Amino acid sequence: MKISFLLTGNELMSGDTVDTNSNYLAQSLKDLNLVPYIKKVVGDDVSLLVSSMRELATVSDVLIVNGGLGPTIDDLTAQALSIAIDAPLQRHPGALQALQIWASPRDFVLTESNLKQADLPNNCEIIENPRGSAVGFRCEFEQCLIICTPGVPSEFKPMVENHVLPLIRDYGGLHVTSRITRLRVFGVTESGLQDIVNQTFPDWPDAVDLGFRVQMPVIEVKLTTIGQENDDLNEYWANKFTRHFSDYIIGTDATRLSQALNKALRDNGKTITLAESCTGGLIASKITSEAGSSKVFEAGFVVYSNRIKTSVLGVHKKELNEHGAVSEKVVCAMAAGALCMSTADYALAISGIAGPDGGSDEKPVGTVWMAWGQAGDIKARHFFLPMSRIAFQRTACAIAMDLMRRELLGLPTDVDYFSELKRKRKP
Amino acid sequence: MKISFLLTGNELMSGDTVDTNSNYLAQSLKDLNLVPYIKKVVGDDVSLLVSSMRELATVSDVLIVNGGLGPTIDDLTAQALSIAIDAPLQRHPGALQALQIWASPRDFVLTESNLKQADLPNNCEIIENPRGSAVGFRCEFEQCLIICTPGVPSEFKPMVENHVLPLIRDYGGLHVTSRITRLRVFGVTESGLQDIVNQTFPDWPDAVDLGFRVQMPVIEVKLTTIGQENDDLNEYWANKFTRHFSDYIIGTDATRLSQALNKALRDNGKTITLAESCTGGLIASKITSEAGSSKVFEAGFVVYSNRIKTSVLGVHKKELNEHGAVSEKVVCAMAAGALCMSTADYALAISGIAGPDGGSDEKPVGTVWMAWGQAGDIKARHFFLPMSRIAFQRTACAIAMDLMRRELLGLPTDVDYFSELKRKRKP
Repeated sequence: MKISFLLTGNELMSGDTVDTNSNYLAQSLKDLNLVPYIKKVVGDDVSLLVSSMRELATVSDVLIVNGGLGPTIDDLTAQALSIAIDAPLQRHPGALQALQIWASPRDFVLTESNLKQADLPNNCEIIENPRGSAVGFRCEFEQCLIICTPGVPSEFKPMVENHVLPLIRDYGGLHVTSRITRLRVFGVTESGLQDIVNQTFPDWPDAVDLGFRVQMPVIEVKLTTIGQENDDLNEYWANKFTRHFSDYIIGTDATRLSQALNKALRDNGKTITLAESCTGGLIASKITSEAGSSKVFEAGFVVYSNRIKTSVLGVHKKELNEHGAVSEKVVCAMAAGALCMSTADYALAISGIAGPDGGSDEKPVGTVWMAWGQAGDIKARHFFLPMSRIAFQRTACAIAMDLMRRELLGLPTDVDYFSELKRKRKP
Repeated sequence: MKISFLLTGNELMSGDTVDTNSNYLAQSLKDLNLVPYIKKVVGDDVSLLVSSMRELATVSDVLIVNGGLGPTIDDLTAQALSIAIDAPLQRHPGALQALQIWASPRDFVLTESNLKQADLPNNCEIIENPRGSAVGFRCEFEQCLIICTPGVPSEFKPMVENHVLPLIRDYGGLHVTSRITRLRVFGVTESGLQDIVNQTFPDWPDAVDLGFRVQMPVIEVKLTTIGQENDDLNEYWANKFTRHFSDYIIGTDATRLSQALNKALRDNGKTITLAESCTGGLIASKITSEAGSSKVFEAGFVVYSNRIKTSVLGVHKKELNEHGAVSEKVVCAMAAGALCMSTADYALAISGIAGPDGGSDEKPVGTVWMAWGQAGDIKARHFFLPMSRIAFQRTACAIAMDLMRRELLGLPTDVDYFSELKRKRKP
């Protein structure tokens, strides 16, 4: 079943208003297992509206028109539909009554502009709109159900729930159900995922639609099947996928990396402290963006200068001088210092060169050391992340959180993150 | 000049991704005094892409295609364009070179999926994309300039600024010169700004187009005039606006709040330390996201638990017990403690209840205290920000940075931020 969407409004074309209605409709259509076919947006222009209505009605089973129902001269939907389907405008008694019912408690005197809202193509049926003055309306044209809806989101959304979805369901005689499995992967690129799937699962069935969506820093993997008879197939391939990517999967649905780390700490009854240099508090802010993080997070130290690394975390000046702030020795000392300064079970420390300045031949911008572990058992790794300052901080933060998550869950921490991020040199 | 926009991607149709590119493009086209003509969005479907390209190219002078340039099988733009304009795909040497240049410093081995990105219709010229692996490309078809651009916003936006707008300008022989003044306002809502402008400047001239764009947490104010003869008018009204909103203006062009604070510190030769509870490192991460922040930022303390407030920053247990962690006494003691622990000139401290739990009748979720100043001269204010945890953290972080900016610049710090955020109770 092909459902198209025509939005109208100069404010949408000029970019002054961000359209959220079409996303809302698309998300709602998922309940009917439908994905919109074409979305078109045009300004307040009668001839463009007429041609777009005809074009979309011809190729679609259902056309939802959104906007242009108001009382002002740039509200042209009824007029355009009347031309498009060749049905003259006529004052609709039900629409007029709805206007009067809306105006009465507001002591609102209906002007000629307002009454215009009751002039509809003569073959239309109205759809009630308890939230506003403009009723919706619908008709059939060339085997297409055309539904005209108000542009104001607070009027549009309840009309979708209460009328548009039931109308579509009845019109299409829909009884299909679908199953969606969502998995969240960290540490593999989108193209890497695609290549691995192609190589590993040449027999991946067409009935299980596999989609990837980058939601930096993770990738959402979505397995969709249509019809209850394919539920088992969905589960079977979701399991196969999960087994293959195993520890790269941080969770299901909308799991964030910070959420996965909070969960791993909570499930283990452990707390964490942080010693951040190059990420400047970003890891702390991610962990504490999660509700309930006070149960697992006690303290973070943003030790930007060398002096503070020494005075607050007790990193020896000798080590800073001999190895530099971005080194295994110093990052391990930072982790040990943070453990001393708090009662946390685990520490995570990071020191690197975010750039754009501060790099050298030996340690170029993008070099970063991370350390993690418990008192007396601290591990470290280095990475080379040659990218913009902001991207470096975000990527380093994500990798650090994932290493800590893996440590807590007893998963490998020597993982080769992203093929793009090959270690290039040993600082 | 008719400019249309074709977006492709199943994630756009399904409503999983909100399109921001088309709004960005529309806003950018205002600089050329242009409004987009038709916007169409379709999924990853070759035949629909082909017919849409042909349809829009026929009725438009310029067609911007967005998305579908990646390496995966659902990236179909080049293939569809090749069919639409009847120009066979051919490996483009420039596109191949761009791929290799992109891959080389990343130690990235180009797979067959990646190389596909260099196969373009044989009459296309490429458009460089320094941010990603996919170059843009362009050609002419039926008197229409077709420009294909990447869907990733961080790649799309610079390509619009650096290539797409100049291409459109040249293609259309547009010689309109316009002057744009951009100002950044913090502390007033968009509707508040509009109301104040309406009341204060009833004589605002039509020739000076005034636009607002919310870029949380600041609002961008844009004054646009067309033609060199109006340059003086632009400057005159920009000055009037600037004088009226004075200390609410944090800078021009794309100034971020963190940037304005870094600049205020640098200009005054001062350094800062932070003591964060409810914002959990967010202020530190914002300040250190700016290049060169190591000159003004030395240390941040994320003191989430009461124990750490005492052990690290020396906040007296008595004060915590008597007044609670979210109180004037404690937040001032946190600031003083941070100054003691570092050599910074200024401290900024924050303690509040981000929720969803932890509120009480006396101190509901959304209550927050901030303290700022130098040793012996610490001021404090409280706010009530009843919103989601994430919005609370972001808003509190922004207000705290603005207070510090104001302090450094000698501006009033008793400002009444946002009309919605009236202080509701005195904790």
